[in-house]
Amino acid sequence: MSRALHDVATGTLFGVALNYQGLLNQHLTEFEQPPYQKPPIKPVLFIKTPNTRNGQDGVVVHPGAGERLQPGPALGVVMGQSASRVSVDQALDYVAGYTIVNEFSLPEDSYYRPAVKAKCRDGFCSIGPELIPAAQIPDPQKLDIKLFVNGEVRQANSTANFVRGVAQLIAEISEFMTLHAGDVLITGTPEGRVDVVPGDRVEIEISGLGRLINHIVVV
Amino acid sequence: MSRALHDVATGTLFGVALNYQGLLNQHLTEFEQPPYQKPPIKPVLFIKTPNTRNGQDGVVVHPGAGERLQPGPALGVVMGQSASRVSVDQALDYVAGYTIVNEFSLPEDSYYRPAVKAKCRDGFCSIGPELIPAAQIPDPQKLDIKLFVNGEVRQANSTANFVRGVAQLIAEISEFMTLHAGDVLITGTPEGRVDVVPGDRVEIEISGLGRLINHIVVV
Repeated sequence: MSRALHDVATGTLFGVALNYQGLLNQHLTEFEQPPYQKPPIKPVLFIKTPNTRNGQDGVVVHPGAGERLQPGPALGVVMGQSASRVSVDQALDYVAGYTIVNEFSLPEDSYYRPAVKAKCRDGFCSIGPELIPAAQIPDPQKLDIKLFVNGEVRQANSTANFVRGVAQLIAEISEFMTLHAGDVLITGTPEGRVDVVPGDRVEIEISGLGRLINHIVVV
Repeated sequence: MSRALHDVATGTLFGVALNYQGLLNQHLTEFEQPPYQKPPIKPVLFIKTPNTRNGQDGVVVHPGAGERLQPGPALGVVMGQSASRVSVDQALDYVAGYTIVNEFSLPEDSYYRPAVKAKCRDGFCSIGPELIPAAQIPDPQKLDIKLFVNGEVRQANSTANFVRGVAQLIAEISEFMTLHAGDVLITGTPEGRVDVVPGDRVEIEISGLGRLINHIVVV
Protein backbone atom coordinates (compact mmCIF):
# COMPACT_ATOMS: atom_id res chain seq x y z
CA MET A 1 0.00 0.00 0.00
CA SER A 2 1.20 3.48 -0.83
CA ARG A 3 2.27 5.70 2.02
CA ALA A 4 0.48 9.04 1.90
CA LEU A 5 2.32 11.42 -0.39
CA HIS A 6 2.07 14.39 1.96
CA ASP A 7 3.70 12.45 4.80
CA VAL A 8 6.74 11.59 2.70
CA ALA A 9 7.44 14.33 0.15
CA THR A 10 8.16 17.01 2.75
CA GLY A 11 11.61 18.14 1.62
CA THR A 12 13.15 20.42 -0.96
CA LEU A 13 11.66 20.49 -4.46
CA PHE A 14 14.52 20.35 -6.99
CA GLY A 15 13.67 21.12 -10.59
CA VAL A 16 15.82 19.85 -13.44
CA ALA A 17 15.84 22.04 -16.53
CA LEU A 18 16.48 20.88 -20.08
CA ASN A 19 16.08 17.18 -19.41
CA TYR A 20 14.26 16.22 -22.58
CA GLN A 21 16.45 15.64 -25.61
CA GLY A 22 13.99 17.45 -27.89
CA LEU A 23 14.04 20.55 -25.70
CA LEU A 24 17.81 20.54 -25.42
CA ASN A 25 18.15 20.23 -29.21
CA GLN A 26 15.87 23.26 -29.71
CA HIS A 27 18.17 25.40 -27.60
CA LEU A 28 21.62 24.25 -28.67
CA THR A 29 22.15 27.24 -30.96
CA GLU A 30 21.29 29.70 -28.20
CA PHE A 31 23.77 28.03 -25.85
CA GLU A 32 26.62 28.67 -28.27
CA GLN A 33 26.15 32.43 -27.67
CA PRO A 34 27.65 34.47 -24.80
CA PRO A 35 27.74 34.31 -21.87
CA TYR A 36 27.71 30.50 -21.81
CA GLN A 37 29.08 29.56 -25.24
CA LYS A 38 28.45 25.87 -24.70
CA PRO A 39 25.59 23.62 -23.66
CA PRO A 40 25.36 22.77 -19.94
CA ILE A 41 27.59 19.82 -19.08
CA LYS A 42 25.91 19.09 -15.74
CA PRO A 43 22.25 18.99 -14.73
CA VAL A 44 20.81 22.52 -14.56
CA LEU A 45 18.86 22.76 -11.33
CA PHE A 46 16.33 25.18 -9.97
CA ILE A 47 14.28 25.21 -6.79
CA LYS A 48 10.54 25.31 -6.27
CA THR A 49 10.19 27.01 -2.88
CA PRO A 50 7.69 25.79 -0.23
CA ASN A 51 5.20 28.56 -1.09
CA THR A 52 4.76 26.88 -4.50
CA ARG A 53 3.37 23.63 -3.06
CA ASN A 54 -0.02 22.66 -4.40
CA GLY A 55 -1.87 19.40 -4.96
CA GLN A 56 -4.69 17.44 -6.53
CA ASP A 57 -7.61 19.71 -7.52
CA GLY A 58 -5.78 22.81 -6.26
CA VAL A 59 -6.25 26.15 -7.96
CA VAL A 60 -3.38 27.97 -9.65
CA VAL A 61 -3.72 31.74 -9.89
CA HIS A 62 -3.01 33.17 -13.34
CA PRO A 63 -0.48 36.02 -13.01
CA GLY A 64 -2.82 38.43 -14.78
CA ALA A 65 -3.50 40.17 -18.06
CA GLY A 66 -0.45 40.53 -20.27
CA GLU A 67 1.31 37.64 -18.52
CA ARG A 68 1.59 34.05 -19.70
CA LEU A 69 1.27 30.91 -17.58
CA GLN A 70 2.52 27.48 -18.66
CA PRO A 71 1.96 24.08 -17.04
CA GLY A 72 4.98 21.80 -16.84
CA PRO A 73 4.29 18.06 -16.90
CA ALA A 74 7.01 16.17 -15.05
CA LEU A 75 7.80 12.88 -13.37
CA GLY A 76 8.41 13.46 -9.65
CA VAL A 77 10.94 11.28 -7.83
CA VAL A 78 10.57 11.18 -4.05
CA MET A 79 13.73 10.29 -2.15
CA GLY A 80 13.41 7.57 0.48
CA GLN A 81 16.76 8.03 2.19
CA SER A 82 19.64 10.47 2.19
CA ALA A 83 21.94 10.20 -0.81
CA SER A 84 25.47 11.59 -0.95
CA ARG A 85 27.85 10.60 -3.75
CA VAL A 86 25.90 7.55 -4.78
CA SER A 87 26.68 5.61 -7.95
CA VAL A 88 24.33 5.28 -10.90
CA ASP A 89 23.97 1.57 -10.13
CA GLN A 90 22.86 2.19 -6.55
CA ALA A 91 20.85 5.38 -7.14
CA LEU A 92 17.38 3.89 -7.55
CA ASP A 93 17.71 2.15 -4.16
CA TYR A 94 17.38 5.61 -2.61
CA VAL A 95 14.00 6.31 -4.21
CA ALA A 96 10.83 5.95 -2.10
CA GLY A 97 8.53 6.27 -5.05
CA TYR A 98 7.18 8.31 -7.93
CA THR A 99 4.44 10.84 -8.41
CA ILE A 100 3.25 13.45 -10.89
CA VAL A 101 4.38 17.07 -10.76
CA ASN A 102 2.87 20.00 -12.59
CA GLU A 103 5.67 22.54 -12.49
CA PHE A 104 3.95 25.79 -13.48
CA SER A 105 6.08 28.62 -14.79
CA LEU A 106 6.02 31.93 -16.53
CA PRO A 107 7.70 31.52 -19.95
CA GLU A 108 11.45 31.08 -19.59
CA ASP A 109 13.73 33.93 -20.48
CA SER A 110 16.64 31.55 -19.98
CA TYR A 111 16.49 27.79 -20.19
CA TYR A 112 20.09 27.79 -19.10
CA ARG A 113 19.28 29.32 -15.71
CA PRO A 114 15.62 29.51 -14.73
CA ALA A 115 14.53 32.51 -12.65
CA VAL A 116 13.04 32.28 -9.16
CA LYS A 117 10.55 34.96 -10.16
CA ALA A 118 9.23 32.81 -13.02
CA LYS A 119 9.18 29.55 -11.11
CA CYS A 120 8.21 30.35 -7.53
CA ARG A 121 4.89 32.10 -7.46
CA ASP A 122 2.48 30.78 -4.81
CA GLY A 123 0.92 27.46 -5.83
CA PHE A 124 3.20 26.92 -8.85
CA CYS A 125 4.16 23.33 -7.97
CA SER A 126 1.34 20.82 -7.90
CA ILE A 127 2.27 17.33 -6.68
CA GLY A 128 0.11 14.22 -6.63
CA PRO A 129 -2.30 12.59 -6.64
CA GLU A 130 -0.35 9.94 -4.72
CA LEU A 131 3.02 8.36 -4.10
CA ILE A 132 3.50 5.14 -6.05
CA PRO A 133 6.17 2.96 -4.40
CA ALA A 134 9.35 2.48 -6.41
CA ALA A 135 8.80 -1.29 -6.52
CA GLN A 136 5.74 -0.74 -8.72
CA ILE A 137 7.76 1.23 -11.30
CA PRO A 138 10.65 -1.05 -12.23
CA ASP A 139 11.84 1.19 -15.10
CA PRO A 140 11.16 4.93 -14.71
CA GLN A 141 12.51 5.54 -18.23
CA LYS A 142 9.55 3.88 -19.94
CA LEU A 143 6.64 6.06 -18.85
CA ASP A 144 4.28 7.96 -21.13
CA ILE A 145 3.56 11.51 -20.01
CA LYS A 146 0.65 13.59 -21.29
CA LEU A 147 -0.73 17.04 -20.67
CA PHE A 148 -4.45 17.64 -21.15
CA VAL A 149 -6.03 21.09 -21.22
CA ASN A 150 -9.82 20.97 -20.97
CA GLY A 151 -9.67 17.30 -21.93
CA GLU A 152 -7.54 17.77 -25.05
CA VAL A 153 -4.00 16.36 -25.32
CA ARG A 154 -1.55 19.27 -25.70
CA GLN A 155 1.79 17.59 -24.90
CA ALA A 156 2.72 13.92 -25.19
CA ASN A 157 6.15 12.52 -24.60
CA SER A 158 7.98 9.70 -22.84
CA THR A 159 10.54 9.52 -20.06
CA ALA A 160 12.54 7.42 -22.56
CA ASN A 161 13.56 10.81 -24.03
CA PHE A 162 15.26 12.09 -20.88
CA VAL A 163 18.73 13.55 -21.34
CA ARG A 164 19.60 12.03 -17.97
CA GLY A 165 17.62 9.18 -16.49
CA VAL A 166 16.49 9.16 -12.87
CA ALA A 167 19.49 7.13 -11.67
CA GLN A 168 21.97 9.38 -13.45
CA LEU A 169 20.33 12.54 -12.07
CA ILE A 170 20.56 11.23 -8.51
CA ALA A 171 24.20 10.26 -9.02
CA GLU A 172 25.24 13.59 -10.55
CA ILE A 173 23.34 15.80 -8.10
CA SER A 174 24.46 13.84 -5.03
CA GLU A 175 28.07 14.45 -6.09
CA PHE A 176 27.86 18.04 -4.83
CA MET A 177 24.88 18.09 -2.47
CA THR A 178 23.18 15.64 -0.15
CA LEU A 179 19.70 14.68 -1.21
CA HIS A 180 17.57 13.98 1.86
CA ALA A 181 14.65 11.64 2.44
CA GLY A 182 11.54 13.53 1.39
CA ASP A 183 13.26 15.65 -1.23
CA VAL A 184 11.57 15.62 -4.62
CA LEU A 185 13.33 15.66 -7.99
CA ILE A 186 11.19 17.23 -10.70
CA THR A 187 12.83 15.46 -13.58
CA GLY A 188 12.07 17.88 -16.39
CA THR A 189 9.31 19.12 -18.67
CA PRO A 190 9.21 18.23 -22.37
CA GLU A 191 9.43 20.68 -25.26
CA GLY A 192 6.28 22.36 -26.54
CA ARG A 193 5.01 24.15 -23.46
CA VAL A 194 1.57 25.68 -23.92
CA ASP A 195 -0.18 28.68 -22.41
CA VAL A 196 -3.21 28.27 -20.16
CA VAL A 197 -5.79 30.84 -19.11
CA PRO A 198 -8.29 31.30 -16.29
CA GLY A 199 -11.04 28.71 -16.45
CA ASP A 200 -8.80 25.99 -17.89
CA ARG A 201 -8.71 22.53 -16.36
CA VAL A 202 -5.15 21.19 -16.58
CA GLU A 203 -4.40 17.49 -16.15
CA ILE A 204 -1.22 15.46 -16.32
CA GLU A 205 -1.22 11.72 -16.79
CA ILE A 206 1.80 9.46 -16.39
CA SER A 207 1.71 5.68 -16.94
CA GLY A 208 1.00 3.96 -13.63
CA LEU A 209 0.90 7.18 -11.61
CA GLY A 210 -2.64 8.36 -12.25
CA ARG A 211 -3.79 11.82 -13.22
CA LEU A 212 -3.07 15.15 -11.49
CA ILE A 213 -5.76 17.79 -11.95
CA ASN A 214 -5.51 21.55 -11.39
CA HIS A 215 -7.68 24.55 -12.17
CA ILE A 216 -6.53 27.94 -13.44
CA VAL A 217 -8.25 30.92 -11.81
CA VAL A 218 -8.09 34.69 -12.02
CA VAL A 219 -6.18 36.78 -9.48
CA MET B 1 15.77 38.95 25.21
CA SER B 2 16.44 37.40 21.82
CA ARG B 3 14.48 34.34 20.87
CA ALA B 4 16.82 31.52 19.87
CA LEU B 5 17.75 31.84 16.22
CA HIS B 6 17.26 28.17 15.43
CA ASP B 7 13.67 28.24 16.72
CA VAL B 8 12.72 31.10 14.43
CA ALA B 9 14.74 30.98 11.21
CA THR B 10 13.33 27.65 10.05
CA GLY B 11 12.04 28.61 6.62
CA THR B 12 13.36 29.08 3.12
CA LEU B 13 16.72 30.81 2.64
CA PHE B 14 16.38 33.38 -0.16
CA GLY B 15 19.57 34.87 -1.53
CA VAL B 16 19.58 38.23 -3.28
CA ALA B 17 22.27 38.66 -5.93
CA LEU B 18 23.80 41.93 -7.06
CA ASN B 19 22.52 43.99 -4.15
CA TYR B 20 25.60 46.17 -3.59
CA GLN B 21 25.90 49.15 -5.86
CA GLY B 22 29.65 48.58 -6.31
CA LEU B 23 29.10 45.00 -7.45
CA LEU B 24 26.31 45.96 -9.83
CA ASN B 25 28.49 48.68 -11.36
CA GLN B 26 31.28 46.18 -11.98
CA HIS B 27 28.96 43.99 -14.02
CA LEU B 28 26.95 46.53 -16.00
CA THR B 29 28.99 46.01 -19.18
CA GLU B 30 28.51 42.25 -19.06
CA PHE B 31 24.75 42.69 -18.70
CA GLU B 32 24.57 44.63 -21.96
CA GLN B 33 25.62 41.44 -23.79
CA PRO B 34 23.31 38.60 -24.93
CA PRO B 35 21.23 36.92 -23.71
CA TYR B 36 20.10 39.58 -21.24
CA GLN B 37 21.13 42.85 -22.94
CA LYS B 38 20.09 44.93 -19.95
CA PRO B 39 20.72 45.00 -16.21
CA PRO B 40 18.17 43.17 -14.03
CA ILE B 41 15.17 45.39 -13.27
CA LYS B 42 13.90 43.27 -10.38
CA PRO B 43 15.75 41.60 -7.49
CA VAL B 44 17.69 38.56 -8.72
CA LEU B 45 16.97 35.74 -6.28
CA PHE B 46 18.55 32.40 -5.62
CA ILE B 47 17.87 29.72 -3.02
CA LYS B 48 20.14 28.21 -0.42
CA THR B 49 18.66 24.74 0.08
CA PRO B 50 18.27 23.16 3.56
CA ASN B 51 21.39 21.01 3.10
CA THR B 52 23.44 24.23 3.10
CA ARG B 53 22.46 25.19 6.68
CA ASN B 54 25.39 25.73 8.99
CA GLY B 55 26.07 27.85 12.06
CA GLN B 56 28.47 29.40 14.55
CA ASP B 57 31.80 27.53 14.63
CA GLY B 58 30.64 25.10 11.95
CA VAL B 59 33.09 23.67 9.44
CA VAL B 60 32.78 24.30 5.73
CA VAL B 61 34.29 21.68 3.44
CA HIS B 62 36.50 23.07 0.69
CA PRO B 63 35.41 21.60 -2.66
CA GLY B 64 38.92 20.32 -3.36
CA ALA B 65 42.06 20.93 -5.35
CA GLY B 66 41.53 23.02 -8.46
CA GLU B 67 38.30 24.48 -7.09
CA ARG B 68 37.79 27.87 -5.44
CA LEU B 69 35.67 28.66 -2.39
CA GLN B 70 34.49 32.15 -1.46
CA PRO B 71 32.79 33.37 1.72
CA GLY B 72 29.88 35.76 1.27
CA PRO B 73 29.27 38.25 4.08
CA ALA B 74 25.61 39.22 4.24
CA LEU B 75 22.98 40.72 6.48
CA GLY B 76 20.28 38.13 7.22
CA VAL B 77 16.67 39.28 7.65
CA VAL B 78 14.41 36.83 9.47
CA MET B 79 10.71 37.19 8.71
CA GLY B 80 8.38 37.36 11.71
CA GLN B 81 5.07 36.96 9.91
CA SER B 82 3.82 36.07 6.45
CA ALA B 83 4.13 38.87 3.91
CA SER B 84 2.21 39.03 0.63
CA ARG B 85 2.10 42.23 -1.44
CA VAL B 86 3.22 44.47 1.40
CA SER B 87 4.18 48.10 0.86
CA VAL B 88 7.66 49.50 1.44
CA ASP B 89 6.30 51.54 4.35
CA GLN B 90 4.89 48.49 6.11
CA ALA B 91 7.60 46.00 5.17
CA LEU B 92 9.83 46.27 8.24
CA ASP B 93 6.85 45.44 10.49
CA TYR B 94 7.08 41.91 9.11
CA VAL B 95 10.69 41.41 10.26
CA ALA B 96 11.37 39.39 13.42
CA GLY B 97 15.01 40.35 13.54
CA TYR B 98 18.44 40.33 11.99
CA THR B 99 21.41 38.01 11.98
CA ILE B 100 24.64 37.38 10.11
CA VAL B 101 24.87 35.07 7.11
CA ASN B 102 28.00 33.70 5.50
CA GLU B 103 26.76 32.68 2.08
CA PHE B 104 29.58 30.49 0.75
CA SER B 105 29.82 29.96 -2.98
CA LEU B 106 32.01 28.69 -5.75
CA PRO B 107 32.98 31.66 -7.95
CA GLU B 108 30.01 32.88 -10.00
CA ASP B 109 29.88 32.11 -13.69
CA SER B 110 26.84 34.35 -13.88
CA TYR B 111 25.94 37.10 -11.48
CA TYR B 112 22.73 37.48 -13.41
CA ARG B 113 21.52 34.00 -12.53
CA PRO B 114 23.46 32.15 -9.83
CA ALA B 115 23.76 28.38 -10.18
CA VAL B 116 22.42 25.86 -7.67
CA LYS B 117 25.60 23.84 -8.13
CA ALA B 118 27.76 26.80 -7.02
CA LYS B 119 25.55 27.89 -4.15
CA CYS B 120 24.09 24.74 -2.59
CA ARG B 121 26.88 22.45 -1.49
CA ASP B 122 26.38 20.99 1.99
CA GLY B 123 27.14 23.53 4.73
CA PHE B 124 27.39 26.50 2.36
CA CYS B 125 25.07 28.78 4.37
CA SER B 126 26.21 29.67 7.86
CA ILE B 127 23.71 31.65 9.96
CA GLY B 128 24.26 33.16 13.40
CA PRO B 129 25.41 33.62 16.05
CA GLU B 130 22.02 34.86 17.21
CA LEU B 131 18.81 36.59 16.24
CA ILE B 132 18.79 40.26 17.19
CA PRO B 133 15.21 41.57 17.47
CA ALA B 134 14.20 44.15 14.87
CA ALA B 135 13.51 46.73 17.60
CA GLN B 136 17.23 46.81 18.39
CA ILE B 137 18.14 47.66 14.77
CA PRO B 138 16.06 50.75 13.93
CA ASP B 139 17.83 51.34 10.59
CA PRO B 140 19.14 48.23 8.81
CA GLN B 141 20.72 50.45 6.12
CA LYS B 142 23.38 51.83 8.45
CA LEU B 143 25.33 48.70 9.39
CA ASP B 144 29.03 48.10 8.84
CA ILE B 145 29.86 44.65 7.49
CA LYS B 146 33.33 43.13 7.59
CA LEU B 147 34.91 39.86 6.54
CA PHE B 148 37.98 38.64 8.41
CA VAL B 149 40.15 35.75 7.23
CA ASN B 150 42.56 34.54 9.91
CA GLY B 151 41.99 37.81 11.76
CA GLU B 152 42.72 40.10 8.81
CA VAL B 153 40.03 42.33 7.27
CA ARG B 154 39.46 41.24 3.65
CA GLN B 155 36.14 42.93 2.84
CA ALA B 156 34.58 45.99 4.46
CA ASN B 157 31.40 47.65 3.32
CA SER B 158 28.13 49.08 4.61
CA THR B 159 24.48 48.21 4.14
CA ALA B 160 24.12 51.87 3.16
CA ASN B 161 25.40 50.72 -0.25
CA PHE B 162 22.55 48.31 -0.94
CA VAL B 163 20.89 48.63 -4.35
CA ARG B 164 17.61 47.81 -2.59
CA GLY B 165 17.14 48.29 1.14
CA VAL B 166 15.53 45.65 3.33
CA ALA B 167 12.07 47.24 3.13
CA GLN B 168 12.19 47.52 -0.65
CA LEU B 169 13.37 43.91 -1.02
CA ILE B 170 10.47 42.63 1.07
CA ALA B 171 8.00 44.75 -0.91
CA GLU B 172 9.29 43.67 -4.33
CA ILE B 173 9.65 39.97 -3.51
CA SER B 174 6.28 39.74 -1.78
CA GLU B 175 4.66 41.07 -4.96
CA PHE B 176 5.06 37.68 -6.61
CA MET B 177 5.57 35.23 -3.74
CA THR B 178 4.47 34.96 -0.13
CA LEU B 179 7.29 35.28 2.35
CA HIS B 180 6.53 33.18 5.43
CA ALA B 181 7.44 33.58 9.09
CA GLY B 182 10.85 31.99 9.51
CA ASP B 183 12.03 32.67 5.97
CA VAL B 184 15.43 34.35 5.75
CA LEU B 185 16.44 36.99 3.21
CA ILE B 186 20.17 36.95 2.53
CA THR B 187 20.41 40.54 1.42
CA GLY B 188 23.53 40.39 -0.72
CA THR B 189 27.30 40.13 -0.62
CA PRO B 190 29.55 43.10 -1.46
CA GLU B 191 32.02 43.25 -4.32
CA GLY B 192 35.55 41.95 -3.81
CA ARG B 193 34.92 38.32 -2.89
CA VAL B 194 38.07 36.50 -1.79
CA ASP B 195 39.19 32.88 -1.94
CA VAL B 196 39.67 30.84 1.22
CA VAL B 197 41.54 27.56 1.70
CA PRO B 198 41.52 24.68 4.18
CA GLY B 199 42.76 25.80 7.58
CA ASP B 200 41.34 29.32 7.28
CA ARG B 201 39.23 30.86 10.02
CA VAL B 202 36.52 32.99 8.44
CA GLU B 203 34.61 35.58 10.48
CA ILE B 204 31.91 38.07 9.60
CA GLU B 205 31.10 41.02 11.81
CA ILE B 206 28.07 43.29 11.41
CA SER B 207 27.35 46.29 13.65
CA GLY B 208 25.16 45.20 16.54
CA LEU B 209 24.85 41.58 15.37
CA GLY B 210 28.08 40.10 16.70
CA ARG B 211 30.54 37.91 14.87
CA LEU B 212 29.92 34.67 12.96
CA ILE B 213 32.88 32.27 12.86
CA ASN B 214 33.46 29.32 10.53
CA HIS B 215 36.37 27.06 9.73
CA ILE B 216 37.43 25.79 6.31
CA VAL B 217 38.44 22.13 6.21
CA VAL B 218 39.59 19.62 3.59
CA VAL B 219 37.23 17.09 2.04
